[in-house]
Amino acid sequence: MSTPLTDAINRELDHILPTIGTRPTRLHEAMRHSVFAGGKRLRPALCIVASEACGGKAQNAMNAACALELLHTYTLIHDDLPAMDNDTLRRGKPTCHIAYDEATAILAGDALLTLSFEVLAKHPQSGALVQELARAAGSRGVIGGQTEDIAAEGKPPEANLLEYIHKNKTAALIRAACVMGGICADANIQTLENLATYGENLGLAFQITDDLLDESSTEEKLGKNIGSDRANEKMTWPALHGKEASQTQIETLTNTACAKADMLPNGSALNALARQMASRTS
Amino acid sequence: MSTPLTDAINRELDHILPTIGTRPTRLHEAMRHSVFAGGKRLRPALCIVASEACGGKAQNAMNAACALELLHTYTLIHDDLPAMDNDTLRRGKPTCHIAYDEATAILAGDALLTLSFEVLAKHPQSGALVQELARAAGSRGVIGGQTEDIAAEGKPPEANLLEYIHKNKTAALIRAACVMGGICADANIQTLENLATYGENLGLAFQITDDLLDESSTEEKLGKNIGSDRANEKMTWPALHGKEASQTQIETLTNTACAKADMLPNGSALNALARQMASRTS
Repeated sequence: MSTPLTDAINRELDHILPTIGTRPTRLHEAMRHSVFAGGKRLRPALCIVASEACGGKAQNAMNAACALELLHTYTLIHDDLPAMDNDTLRRGKPTCHIAYDEATAILAGDALLTLSFEVLAKHPQSGALVQELARAAGSRGVIGGQTEDIAAEGKPPEANLLEYIHKNKTAALIRAACVMGGICADANIQTLENLATYGENLGLAFQITDDLLDESSTEEKLGKNIGSDRANEKMTWPALHGKEASQTQIETLTNTACAKADMLPNGSALNALARQMASRTS
Repeated sequence: MSTPLTDAINRELDHILPTIGTRPTRLHEAMRHSVFAGGKRLRPALCIVASEACGGKAQNAMNAACALELLHTYTLIHDDLPAMDNDTLRRGKPTCHIAYDEATAILAGDALLTLSFEVLAKHPQSGALVQELARAAGSRGVIGGQTEDIAAEGKPPEANLLEYIHKNKTAALIRAACVMGGICADANIQTLENLATYGENLGLAFQITDDLLDESSTEEKLGKNIGSDRANEKMTWPALHGKEASQTQIETLTNTACAKADMLPNGSALNALARQMASRTS
């Protein structure tokens, strides 16, 4: 779904990414293939809306927003690799290693990760932004979550492990998106903490919703292989706690997030976004 | 070979890397396996010596130096993967995907790349350092060089292509190491340009020396599979121009590098380092 905000994010991503004709052309084609494969731009949108919630201007958060999407896209490319989840379809298009090849997909992911930090380097708050993004994305964040997620395949479900995976693999980057928006708006520590709590609760709710949709939606709606969690014997919230408890947990997490949004100077859009995420069907 | 400088670098790397016991333990073990596999620490040493050549203190360049080694180690891990060069031996030890598994090796590389930027975030010159490292390491630098290197396998040797590969895959990061040392010493633009030229020439000489050693050294001395360039039908300088011309080219590049070192306030150690690199046997 296209909105003025996602259009602006897409224009900036197009501006940041090397053109198709830039050497090595196949690498840059692969990077663009995955970045422009129809992502919803949740993380960059969150960054910008979080910045505005603190009284910042969208334009000052645009680079950080794009860095988040570049980094998120790299995680998808590497997660889809044969050695990881071995997925062939993502957002309704062939995954990067299917459309190109495995080496190109690994390198395109590496290049998007590297580019995300290059983009942040130009921001007046580069130190704080790089630190926030690198911590969230690193071995004690997103990569840690992905490592435990793969290791957990085929094991009996376990609540603590599932919480670690969701908190790190998914919520860490969504949390960082909100905090980085605040940093771009020069928000104070208390405000950054509220944004962090908002983002973490939103991120956990987002992942449980994803788990539910993986079981109940259609391939056409989601644009990815359906039931792949179950096929890969992934640990999910519905598998561990049941569908009804999952729905209740989504509501609890969303309420906590919204309460934090309401403490921000201009948090109504963040509040609305959390409600909208909780009731999505794709 | 251990020196007071490499010992200090190793201590700092040990301090920076999460401990073995940190969750996920297997991931952090894999990261440490590759970082502490006996690397010569050329890039961090260059960064520190370059900084001192501009009148800076070693301690102020130590973080940037370690970021370079973390990033370099990630490139080795990913280059060794089955989808890339498929190497089983590196610095005399099993490569990361052999010692662990392919998924862990991909993630350990990703985590080291991410950590290298986290380390730079704390430096007072974080913006300039992140920009320099990300540009050198990105799709128009190291990753671009690796992409073209893989694509060139089995093709007839071609001088322009070989130059692109060497300049980007190897020289870009060595150049960045020198420039980052200068940035840590608050060097002016002219000095940074001299360091860049020094680093680029040293980097090209280094790669041609590597190509020669791959043909003539022993597995025991180099600690990696010998003749793997030829087996993978890699484009190399000796294969294209012959051994004698390669030796002459190394001398020419080293002389250019040394002339630039001599223009720096305190460049004698950089000069000596370039001479030493040109005559190495492993």
